[in-house]
Amino acid sequence: MIDFQALWDAIARVKNISPLVHNITNYVTANPCANITLACGASPVMADEIMEVEDIQSISKGLNINIGTINSNRIESILRAGETAKRLDHPIVFDPVGVGASKFRFEVAMNILKKIKPDVIKGNLSEIRSIWEKKHHSKGVDVSEEDKKHLSLSSAEFMTRELAKELDAVVITTGEVDIISDGRSIVRVFNGHSMMEKITGSGCQLSSVVAAFISANPDCIFEASVSAVITMGISGELAYENLHENQSCGSYGIKLIDAMSEIDEAIFKERGRYEIV
Amino acid sequence: MIDFQALWDAIARVKNISPLVHNITNYVTANPCANITLACGASPVMADEIMEVEDIQSISKGLNINIGTINSNRIESILRAGETAKRLDHPIVFDPVGVGASKFRFEVAMNILKKIKPDVIKGNLSEIRSIWEKKHHSKGVDVSEEDKKHLSLSSAEFMTRELAKELDAVVITTGEVDIISDGRSIVRVFNGHSMMEKITGSGCQLSSVVAAFISANPDCIFEASVSAVITMGISGELAYENLHENQSCGSYGIKLIDAMSEIDEAIFKERGRYEIV
Amino acid sequence: MIDFQALWDAIARVKNISPLVHNITNYVTANPCANITLACGASPVMADEIMEVEDIQSISKGLNINIGTINSNRIESILRAGETAKRLDHPIVFDPVGVGASKFRFEVAMNILKKIKPDVIKGNLSEIRSIWEKKHHSKGVDVSEEDKKHLSLSSAEFMTRELAKELDAVVITTGEVDIISDGRSIVRVFNGHSMMEKITGSGCQLSSVVAAFISANPDCIFEASVSAVITMGISGELAYENLHENQSCGSYGIKLIDAMSEIDEAIFKERGRYEIV
Repeated sequence: MIDFQALWDAIARVKNISPLVHNITNYVTANPCANITLACGASPVMADEIMEVEDIQSISKGLNINIGTINSNRIESILRAGETAKRLDHPIVFDPVGVGASKFRFEVAMNILKKIKPDVIKGNLSEIRSIWEKKHHSKGVDVSEEDKKHLSLSSAEFMTRELAKELDAVVITTGEVDIISDGRSIVRVFNGHSMMEKITGSGCQLSSVVAAFISANPDCIFEASVSAVITMGISGELAYENLHENQSCGSYGIKLIDAMSEIDEAIFKERGRYEIV
Repeated sequence: MIDFQALWDAIARVKNISPLVHNITNYVTANPCANITLACGASPVMADEIMEVEDIQSISKGLNINIGTINSNRIESILRAGETAKRLDHPIVFDPVGVGASKFRFEVAMNILKKIKPDVIKGNLSEIRSIWEKKHHSKGVDVSEEDKKHLSLSSAEFMTRELAKELDAVVITTGEVDIISDGRSIVRVFNGHSMMEKITGSGCQLSSVVAAFISANPDCIFEASVSAVITMGISGELAYENLHENQSCGSYGIKLIDAMSEIDEAIFKERGRYEIV
Repeated sequence: MIDFQALWDAIARVKNISPLVHNITNYVTANPCANITLACGASPVMADEIMEVEDIQSISKGLNINIGTINSNRIESILRAGETAKRLDHPIVFDPVGVGASKFRFEVAMNILKKIKPDVIKGNLSEIRSIWEKKHHSKGVDVSEEDKKHLSLSSAEFMTRELAKELDAVVITTGEVDIISDGRSIVRVFNGHSMMEKITGSGCQLSSVVAAFISANPDCIFEASVSAVITMGISGELAYENLHENQSCGSYGIKLIDAMSEIDEAIFKERGRYEIV
């Protein structure tokens, strides 16, 4: 059940267990992803060599797959890490970064969805829509203006829930309001700040946090995903509030990691804003 | 024509259009390069897999090529992305990082110059001199003491203009005074701060900013290049002024990105220092 | 001889000579590693393409090998760079990141130790123990709770010294107390702060600093290694003391680099805490 206590318990487990999380991610945001994983209480390992992904996944508690700077060499590594995670019942989150930006990336994403069946898929509106519509179209890695305009909240929610149902997974569609569905319930998260779009990799960092949270909570992946989204959103708000004079997007990225490590039960319950539809 | 209004207009267009810029860059500075691209008002996409660079370049407005951690696999990707950019009339900036540091890197750079014909080449004195003299010699990726001493401003200006003429491109030679030439005019930019040499990748970040500026200004590449150099230089000065007690090169890198996002018309006109020769 | 003057002299030489240091490292922490190299007074070049590592190593003064995100393609580059360094009498530091985390990584590490014979090996307790016991076991890239509990200081010291003797190298075993041995003497360094474990790559950064220090001090590698460990530890303490309200692990990583660049003779002698056993 999704109430504040259950959501906080999911976070507390991350801090108590400090799960090792295997990330196969891009070289642009690997550093902040590793740092936010530490900040939320887990421990990251980045490894993508095919000769070792099985070993690395075996000692980890979960897997984060991010195709931000995907290259051909890494596809087999992703698939093998994914198979290992599945075999060991380790939860998997998949971030289809820029899935609509190239035919290649789209096919890689479809392949991952089909062969690995991730437990959680996290994307922005354009990315989730690309997967939903099974065709590629988007402005690079950001959400397109067209998508922002034409997709009303209710149709985004419909899409999120139907895709979750179809993929038998939790789907997270980020935006001004973040939408999370397990194919039955829909949760709207109102936390977050527009500055998050002004730094590279806040989306990648959310996926790393989701990976940490589901790794510590394999039996309540939906709740853990909602917790991760709320926690990241609160971090985004706190980071903004903590900006001083002359500080802007450079400092914001640093303060986002600061904030993540400072969230405790009181802050979480006071600031978390969500509703279940 | 190069006057403050034209130079500011080039910047304003970056902020208005927010062009998607395709970067093929190194893994050391990819993160700050992406962040400074966002800070100046554009949107970055990093992608180097040969199977997708054509698609990625097609949805972008320009291309940034940086050979900082170049490897064999990426050469074909660079060439294909470059050909696509040329075909679509997208401007290209090339940063021959450490071109004098190895025979391999030198040959890669020559190959890029010959086959892609970039619109802008940006390097420090040693890098530009390496290309100019068609031989490799330099101390790693920094400017050599020898070059600093023996190349007077006037000979550096001569070299910059002649190379620009020869390559039919804009050439930017960075140093205490930055020199920019389109093969006819020479512009000296006096902005900047020596702390920029104490962080990794301030040169790479300048190339990313140039890429953003020319992507939004394909019809005035020279002006856009001058604007980018001034803007980066002002950011370097502001970042230094914003350092507090106990803050040094770590904080400086963050404040450089902060400063880039804070530059408006008033700051630009008040602080920009350049002359046309 | 190891006294404060000799240790400071080693640091002063880094700042005077500003050696170019060749790093073959991972893409997660390459950026902070480059920045801390600059902060301590040296100059970094990251290069791992086999076609150029010989040239790059030839113009450098030393080599840092880090297997954090090792992949098959890079092994030959490491071996060739290592052979070049040996041939030119350039000192080499090896950081066997996560050596116990996979069979592949363990074999790569053994291969490097055998073929390159690094001058310094730096690892945490679990990594050094993995090499010492010639078998792989560890929790990812961090030190395991089991190792923390069962390895007393004296047994860690014994292991460090015996391994140093066996490998004819300086071995650095990091932990609450850092232990450094050349196979004869043992030095305990008490500097450092627990926050260093809450950011990614503080261990990688130490290796980069060691690389910078031994590159400038090829004739006193043991002293330079001790200096590097003390300097990094002091930086970790200063970074913590410089944290303001609402600042945590994000800011800490930045302040660590700030602190490194601020260490002078007075700070070093006042704050350095070590003993020779």
